[in-house]
Amino acid sequence: MKQDELKKLVGYKAVDWIHDGMIVGLGTGSTVKYMINALARKIKNEHLNITGVVTSNQTANQARLLGIKLKSVDAVDHIDLTIDGADEISSDYQGIKGGGAALLFEKIVATNSKKNIWIVDQSKLVDQLGAFPLPVEVIPYGSRQLFSSFKAKGFHPEFRITTMGEKRKTDSGNFIIDLHLGKISKPEKMATYLKSQVGVVEHGLFLNTVNTVVAGYDDGPRVFEAR
Amino acid sequence: MKQDELKKLVGYKAVDWIHDGMIVGLGTGSTVKYMINALARKIKNEHLNITGVVTSNQTANQARLLGIKLKSVDAVDHIDLTIDGADEISSDYQGIKGGGAALLFEKIVATNSKKNIWIVDQSKLVDQLGAFPLPVEVIPYGSRQLFSSFKAKGFHPEFRITTMGEKRKTDSGNFIIDLHLGKISKPEKMATYLKSQVGVVEHGLFLNTVNTVVAGYDDGPRVFEAR
Repeated sequence: MKQDELKKLVGYKAVDWIHDGMIVGLGTGSTVKYMINALARKIKNEHLNITGVVTSNQTANQARLLGIKLKSVDAVDHIDLTIDGADEISSDYQGIKGGGAALLFEKIVATNSKKNIWIVDQSKLVDQLGAFPLPVEVIPYGSRQLFSSFKAKGFHPEFRITTMGEKRKTDSGNFIIDLHLGKISKPEKMATYLKSQVGVVEHGLFLNTVNTVVAGYDDGPRVFEAR
Repeated sequence: MKQDELKKLVGYKAVDWIHDGMIVGLGTGSTVKYMINALARKIKNEHLNITGVVTSNQTANQARLLGIKLKSVDAVDHIDLTIDGADEISSDYQGIKGGGAALLFEKIVATNSKKNIWIVDQSKLVDQLGAFPLPVEVIPYGSRQLFSSFKAKGFHPEFRITTMGEKRKTDSGNFIIDLHLGKISKPEKMATYLKSQVGVVEHGLFLNTVNTVVAGYDDGPRVFEAR
């Protein structure tokens, strides 16, 4: 199957975990889009009462168009389950997210969720993290100084650029610096280092976060229980 | 002397550290305002070439009106010296800043400065930090959840509110949560905890930052070399 069909496969499969009355975190990205389409259909067909908590303006727009009831993460007292994509998942179920520049809100929603499910095509499963560039969300003021310090450390930083050639702004108005690390041998250490830097708002390492991974393979979706 | 006269005293004194050709970080707040007035006069009288790097829109406006040449922190390759205020300075020269809601840019500029001078009236010098509420800059999305978690930890959080009764927005569009801690017995531990929280952008603990403190006393300014 093509990558896009694998994404559709797991997107459709993921709604199996969603039941009546749930408050559900809705991730961001191309795989999640399929899940949200399937969710809207399921809500309609089965007359479910589902509340969505969004992780980006992009997802909010899609969900609103499909008539899914939405609340802010601050207007709910818990989130039962969040379904999101991932850019890389290691064999010990650590992840890199943020290819879609929504990592900050995704992490905020994931942190407030009782359970996290990631849906990916099989190409996202790797032995070790780091081939995918690690996104770091930074405050614009001082970002060139941070960039220089990342460069000096050998992190091969690159500002995320829009098709218009400008620095990409996140939903919070920050910049993204992608670190081309190749391999991240100590994700915990890297996470602590990055978060401790003044001007770093958040980074794309999602450690000890995911509970269940649903991965699309040619012979169908496979489910891995991570923690 | 009144508090305001003490602020004026140290504000005027601080420009002694500024010399021709310097790139100078300009802090934010009522004491710094006096310093910037004195600096503008000194530049004019002594025909100095000084570049200012600002820490807030407020300071940028004042400096611009006075004709001080300004650059972004990202447009300079170093900062020789930053002069800023502080809300509390402990006997081991750790500080709380952020009463003026500019702590994020203040910390970014301080981090990029070769030397940091804090100017305060004597009332800011304390044995132990914490009587002054500790400001924490947080991403609006999820801030109510963070607030609840701070409350559960006994940090007595309070959103910073404007005179209009709305949540105060920082220059980066974030909220401020003030923690009423009374005493902070382990500032390093508190700083690490706060910065590690998802949604926390920065906090007002400025540890191992200041090099020189200029404090206004009734009998004149006193200078303390911290590190």
